[in-house]
Amino acid sequence: MQLTFFTPGPAQLFPTFEKHLHTFVEGQLGSISHRSQQYRDLHKFTVDQLRILLNVPDTHAILFLGSASEIWERILFSCVELESFHLVNGSFSKKFYDYSNALNKYAHKYEKPMGEGFIASEIEVPEYAELICTTHNETSSGVQMTVAEIHKLKQKYPHKLIAVDMVSSAPYPDLDFNLIDTAFFSVQKAFGLPAGLGVWIVNEKCLAKAEHIRQQYSIGAHNDLPTLWKNALKHETPATPNVMGIYLLGKIAEDFNKIGVGQIRKETEHKAGLLYKFVEKHNGFSTFVKQKAQRSQTVVVTNTEVPAAEIIKALKSKEMVVGSGYGEFKGTQLRIANFPATSTGQVEALIKELESI
Amino acid sequence: MQLTFFTPGPAQLFPTFEKHLHTFVEGQLGSISHRSQQYRDLHKFTVDQLRILLNVPDTHAILFLGSASEIWERILFSCVELESFHLVNGSFSKKFYDYSNALNKYAHKYEKPMGEGFIASEIEVPEYAELICTTHNETSSGVQMTVAEIHKLKQKYPHKLIAVDMVSSAPYPDLDFNLIDTAFFSVQKAFGLPAGLGVWIVNEKCLAKAEHIRQQYSIGAHNDLPTLWKNALKHETPATPNVMGIYLLGKIAEDFNKIGVGQIRKETEHKAGLLYKFVEKHNGFSTFVKQKAQRSQTVVVTNTEVPAAEIIKALKSKEMVVGSGYGEFKGTQLRIANFPATSTGQVEALIKELESI
Repeated sequence: MQLTFFTPGPAQLFPTFEKHLHTFVEGQLGSISHRSQQYRDLHKFTVDQLRILLNVPDTHAILFLGSASEIWERILFSCVELESFHLVNGSFSKKFYDYSNALNKYAHKYEKPMGEGFIASEIEVPEYAELICTTHNETSSGVQMTVAEIHKLKQKYPHKLIAVDMVSSAPYPDLDFNLIDTAFFSVQKAFGLPAGLGVWIVNEKCLAKAEHIRQQYSIGAHNDLPTLWKNALKHETPATPNVMGIYLLGKIAEDFNKIGVGQIRKETEHKAGLLYKFVEKHNGFSTFVKQKAQRSQTVVVTNTEVPAAEIIKALKSKEMVVGSGYGEFKGTQLRIANFPATSTGQVEALIKELESI
Repeated sequence: MQLTFFTPGPAQLFPTFEKHLHTFVEGQLGSISHRSQQYRDLHKFTVDQLRILLNVPDTHAILFLGSASEIWERILFSCVELESFHLVNGSFSKKFYDYSNALNKYAHKYEKPMGEGFIASEIEVPEYAELICTTHNETSSGVQMTVAEIHKLKQKYPHKLIAVDMVSSAPYPDLDFNLIDTAFFSVQKAFGLPAGLGVWIVNEKCLAKAEHIRQQYSIGAHNDLPTLWKNALKHETPATPNVMGIYLLGKIAEDFNKIGVGQIRKETEHKAGLLYKFVEKHNGFSTFVKQKAQRSQTVVVTNTEVPAAEIIKALKSKEMVVGSGYGEFKGTQLRIANFPATSTGQVEALIKELESI
């Protein structure tokens, strides 16, 4: 039985994954030294492909860590001396906020219920907050904050740093890195790879801030930003990295670049459109996110009249896997990932099965 | 060209690696949810196999993090309120010490030059040091602190916590976890896997200490010990883990258990014996570590009369890769890994090539 995963991470692996894994194994790349030229070339290839894909200028480093959760912590260590500000509307944006408290920072939040989103004009960032933490795509509720609103928010507060969690949406959001100070994602979502690698995009302003903070406070010991940055200049990491993950990410990013990021974004919107159209029109389903502009393009969340578990079970018998709702919505919602690894044809096949339920 | 890697990590992959990787891919395990029963079973399997292999009692949790370097930091956050103590005799034991300073702890050290080791009777731990940090195998210099001396040191200071870095030796050291509070390793050394996973063995005393410390100080936000522990009780991790690494580690640990850890330790000593015998007897080579008992069984370091780079190049033409010396010894030493992935026959073949140089 070969399943198709429409789960929001870990997710369906990208079709070329096996081919690249084979090349990695054949080339014995799992054994090469992380201080060799061969490794540095591999590392640089991945960074270069990501720069092209996400349009990241040289003012920003692209760094490799263990997970996006680790990056939450490193951003807070590096960019917040005393106070952070968080837009919270789901479990993952809430965790970013919790991390700040756990590091004994003073964390402010503007909170909305699950399923609701934010626009820049309604947001008042406290005067002493140094960093604004936004979530482009709240994986738990299927709410997006549009790129336009994120950009507007930064323009409203140009002297504060802004961080964008794009864990479950990159490379979909077309961020302007002339505005965005730092952003991050992990590879087991829209890049269609096994979990175990987080990617941190971060600019010189964050680096300067980290260097300022550490004159008085700890900015962490492992993967602290100045050490990561210094190593990145020579295409290395401070400790032995997930070489396999970095290699595979570079190859998938190259595949994405061959398709073209514009095309990937267009297909993402097309497939999301098909899914939302089904959810809106079909009895027994209804959209969780009421504001159309705030509906995620990569994680479609639908309320269900029959218990979600029954639908999940029925789909499984058709070799399709969708995610359940998050937390309290586990029994009454489905979360359907819409990542590049699943084609329009596969999304149409899923909709056909949903229609027959 | 198929190379044999005698490098101290990343290293030669264990012969069964490809088979297990194939099973992982065929089973679509890269896509399964890390909150599913299927994942929990996989996680528990790896923990159970490691418990058998390393004789870890139920007083200790076995936790999965991104790297051994990350674990240095988490141990210091969890076990040190104010003061730590470090045995430093190489680059990696020095980094553990540096991490403590970076977290604004007061780090004491007893330091010896590269190539020298420690015995319990000579060590005086300062009164207020809460944690004793030892390195079973200093990868940079090929010095081991014997398990007997580590145990004696804990018995000398039973009320202090003790940590054992066994990054480049596990499963070789037969630690008594009735004495050892915490130990850790990474998978790209003697387990013969690609890098990207660190394993943290830690007991209830460390957990209690972490819970005490966090009443007053931050113990970190990501992978803090109480959260890791709580998740481990249900065979999960706080964030999406490196599922592939955890799966492969479980299968390799199972393979090791089938061979028997006693047999693996015996073979390790036999192969190390062959290498040290060659180094001692052959013109142009000499052992770096003078005290016989302190010579690493898993990373053999030899001084070379001809430039190390020439030997490395000559071996490469014979499809064998050995490591250069570390730091200032890069040009004048070789580091030869002696992990389970390389057989007695392969070690003999390496020695034969070294003899002909």
